Amino acid sequence: MPYTSPVAEFRFLLDHVLAYAKLAQTETFAEADAETTDAILTELGRLCDDVMAPVNRAGDLTPAVLENGIVRTSPGFKSAYQAIAEGGWLGISADPEFGGMGLPQTLNTAMNEMMSGACLALQLCPLLSQGQIEALEHHASDELKALYLPKLTSGAWTGTMNLTEPQAGSDVGALTTKATANGDGSYAVTGQKIFITWGDHDVAENVCHLVLARLPDGAPGTRGISLFMVPKFLPDEGGNPGERNDLRVVSLEHKLGIHGSPTCVMSFEGAKGWLVGKENGGMAAMFTMMNNARLGVGAQGIGVAEAAYQHALSYAQDRVQGKTPLGKGAIIDHADVRRMLATMKAEIFAVRAIALACGLSMDMAKAGNDPHWQARAALLTPIAKAHGTDIGCEVSSMGVQIHGGMGFIEETGAAQFFRDARITPIYEGTNGIQAMDLVGRKMMDGGEAAFRLLQEVEDCAENARTQLAELANPVWDAAETLREATEWLVAQDANTRNAGAVPYLRAFARVLGAHYHLKAAIADPQGARARLAKVFIDRILPEHSSLLVQARAGAEQLYALSPEDLESA
Amino acid sequence: MPYTSPVAEFRFLLDHVLAYAKLAQTETFAEADAETTDAILTELGRLCDDVMAPVNRAGDLTPAVLENGIVRTSPGFKSAYQAIAEGGWLGISADPEFGGMGLPQTLNTAMNEMMSGACLALQLCPLLSQGQIEALEHHASDELKALYLPKLTSGAWTGTMNLTEPQAGSDVGALTTKATANGDGSYAVTGQKIFITWGDHDVAENVCHLVLARLPDGAPGTRGISLFMVPKFLPDEGGNPGERNDLRVVSLEHKLGIHGSPTCVMSFEGAKGWLVGKENGGMAAMFTMMNNARLGVGAQGIGVAEAAYQHALSYAQDRVQGKTPLGKGAIIDHADVRRMLATMKAEIFAVRAIALACGLSMDMAKAGNDPHWQARAALLTPIAKAHGTDIGCEVSSMGVQIHGGMGFIEETGAAQFFRDARITPIYEGTNGIQAMDLVGRKMMDGGEAAFRLLQEVEDCAENARTQLAELANPVWDAAETLREATEWLVAQDANTRNAGAVPYLRAFARVLGAHYHLKAAIADPQGARARLAKVFIDRILPEHSSLLVQARAGAEQLYALSPEDLESA
Repeated sequence: MPYTSPVAEFRFLLDHVLAYAKLAQTETFAEADAETTDAILTELGRLCDDVMAPVNRAGDLTPAVLENGIVRTSPGFKSAYQAIAEGGWLGISADPEFGGMGLPQTLNTAMNEMMSGACLALQLCPLLSQGQIEALEHHASDELKALYLPKLTSGAWTGTMNLTEPQAGSDVGALTTKATANGDGSYAVTGQKIFITWGDHDVAENVCHLVLARLPDGAPGTRGISLFMVPKFLPDEGGNPGERNDLRVVSLEHKLGIHGSPTCVMSFEGAKGWLVGKENGGMAAMFTMMNNARLGVGAQGIGVAEAAYQHALSYAQDRVQGKTPLGKGAIIDHADVRRMLATMKAEIFAVRAIALACGLSMDMAKAGNDPHWQARAALLTPIAKAHGTDIGCEVSSMGVQIHGGMGFIEETGAAQFFRDARITPIYEGTNGIQAMDLVGRKMMDGGEAAFRLLQEVEDCAENARTQLAELANPVWDAAETLREATEWLVAQDANTRNAGAVPYLRAFARVLGAHYHLKAAIADPQGARARLAKVFIDRILPEHSSLLVQARAGAEQLYALSPEDLESA
Repeated sequence: MPYTSPVAEFRFLLDHVLAYAKLAQTETFAEADAETTDAILTELGRLCDDVMAPVNRAGDLTPAVLENGIVRTSPGFKSAYQAIAEGGWLGISADPEFGGMGLPQTLNTAMNEMMSGACLALQLCPLLSQGQIEALEHHASDELKALYLPKLTSGAWTGTMNLTEPQAGSDVGALTTKATANGDGSYAVTGQKIFITWGDHDVAENVCHLVLARLPDGAPGTRGISLFMVPKFLPDEGGNPGERNDLRVVSLEHKLGIHGSPTCVMSFEGAKGWLVGKENGGMAAMFTMMNNARLGVGAQGIGVAEAAYQHALSYAQDRVQGKTPLGKGAIIDHADVRRMLATMKAEIFAVRAIALACGLSMDMAKAGNDPHWQARAALLTPIAKAHGTDIGCEVSSMGVQIHGGMGFIEETGAAQFFRDARITPIYEGTNGIQAMDLVGRKMMDGGEAAFRLLQEVEDCAENARTQLAELANPVWDAAETLREATEWLVAQDANTRNAGAVPYLRAFARVLGAHYHLKAAIADPQGARARLAKVFIDRILPEHSSLLVQARAGAEQLYALSPEDLESA
């Protein structure tokens, strides 16, 4: 199952579609010039293609196992992880003060996508560490930072997020894990956590758990939650792994996909931990970690889509079946197979652009402290997460379909992408929650950030009308329809918004996707970019209008259904 | 994983949405009166709920295995199969002359759906036998009929279809399996076949293979293919299993889903067989079998969707998470979960109605020898197959999503539906092939059958305009848009049609689904049916317009993409 990182695609997007070059003009990202960016992408591509992709299949076939309380990972995972660590990639966006490269989130997003395309199950490990690094940078005490950040950044230690409990999934505020002060500045953490990704393993020497728990006087709900650093091995005086902490892996989950990623049930039994951030300030710290992780999960969906696309394209180029309109040849020349391949490629381009634009907005916000960029990043994050992962599922399903009967046979490999991708719309906040975030929190500005973005979309289309009328006109019209729907939306109550949230988010993604395709076509008006833009704008963009009808259908009809109406037999 | 056959849904559809009662007025189906139909559905429901559903999980966890050349099926499958056989269900639509019940395809379709909802992997075995029975009824000699039909109808023996070879999947005409006359009326069949569902097993005493092969003077392509009956055990003089034939199972496939269904690589090594139908007439016989099987596979998708829906509904009723608009309660009261559940239920109703309407058209054609009903059945078959299976995949994916993180854990069971359903858009002709059949062969009448159906849709909407304007008007408008698209379509060349075939088929299914929902609402204008119809017509039907834009986008833009344009990295 060879995989080739789409380095040229990233270059094109950064150079011609997104204003990435502006970053190097800021003080914060002065190092991210064209030369460095190029070198980073090339080096990452090599790592993903040559080191990570080769272990992807083994991770599926030989899942991690729990033996005598210790998790043994899949064959090849340890050395692949160590190659990631040695490259310094854990710290691609981390603070140089603690060994990080301090490079933009935009590049980090590209990295996350490439690594996920190569091996999603393994990529989860660095992704979690990244989130932890960011949470510590923003919220931890100087002492904790000095102790943990160098280890996490070098990859010597890894990080996890311990949020979920059996009764507290999407509703984090329902958690019951407790923390009590030990009197020495540390706390004793007790409780059970589930779905802990890479909760234990043998690829690095320590596992640092960030655990959400409630102090004795913590209020019910999310307001009374605090965050704790609870390492598997307590750092000794030299900062090295010392005494074993009172926490253990109870069991590993048997999952539909990402078999190589150990998903643990964790038990904390008076485990020693240290407060990160303020007492009862756990949710704020958690959100720092989650915003990073949400874009990262969107990138995962895109990575799997890319890998599934490459896999299906290769099959379609080789598989001869029937007479095509171009003669006896490979199935790539059948109209419906071309439709699927072109759709896959156009979808991937669109959502990759959205994800990079989201990363770039985070970077611009950081570099310039500009609230508009902050708002832009906040607006794009749920779209990048939900749409990236939806496309991951849809494209990997089309990948199976292109393989015909062979797609259903596990040896072919197409099915693994389909299985692996399926978690991405669920974790880091289900896609329903992302959509509610978009129409809720992210519209608390009355839609200002959305209107500002739509204005850019319309201005771009307006400027392209003469040169590329066939492409520009539908984009302008679609942006206008979305603007009207947004104006309607912000005037509705919360539940009406929520009832239309998922189709609204997807419609937004369609318009943005078309916008970035149009920008690509402007850069290459006679070439492949314009031809692919035409496929997207003619065939995929029109979906936005049906979606917006659904987005505006309201909640009333849904709540008019009684429990008996929904019963089945 | 309890499953309850949706018997009341079938009753409602037969009584109030479809003109099923007309069948009992024909000579052919005089026995299919309300009382018999009721008894059959109830009895089948009991079998599916109490006998088949309980083995579904075991089939997934303990797949069939090949031991010393013999396939051992999953725990419980043998006794469940025998209960099906003892009920006489193999012959529900078979000729009473050979022990069948001679009941309508409409009921058979309901049976296939219920059995698939209960246990898809097991249901494949009777489904294949049914197809074989129909092929033999239409094409076999009296001698073969007398020998095989009673055994297949009683379920003592089972049937398979041997079409596919490694180089001949969708392109059946590329097959290389050979048959040569033995001089005694029998033939020697030699070749390898792949993807042979239930190609061997231990649930019945003989396996009857219908094998496509080429005679020495057979022309290349599909015109030179003949069909042969090649039993595992040659019938002795008493018609009982005698000498072992020269065929064997080479291996079993390791599949994404339907683990309980043994998918065999078969080797025929001069195996003795008998011609079914005429020399070089194999494709005609095969198509008889496939039309039956295509509707059956559509029903499979619906059955899995129903099971996944019940499973998700039950979870949503029990799982308490967060504050809902109706207070602290189960997640069924969150707007987006309601949206998903209502969508699932509305989708299932729509496509179930389409499948039953297809079966009913087959029955009316058989009963009255009316070419219009024949054309209606031919038109609806690819829609029922492709849309039924697409909905199977989509609804089972929503079922996973409603479960959140639990949906990704195999023990929960939601993932099994998602995996099992994924084969249905592939086998019995991929959904792309179904769509090309719809816009190709099924439009060779210039669209007459389609226009006739759309006229009925419009007439129904017209009549309902005063009583149910909110529902009737959008249905009329959508039918008109589809009529215009169909007029455009029939004037196009083959490849332009093919480039839009998949979205066109789905748009057609949207309009038909809305039509049947409207009919349900007419029968129950103040009740649950009307409320569900509103969900479908407001939220799902509008998709048709975007789909028809895509259907009309043409082939040119797809073929404008060069091979290099489609390359990735």
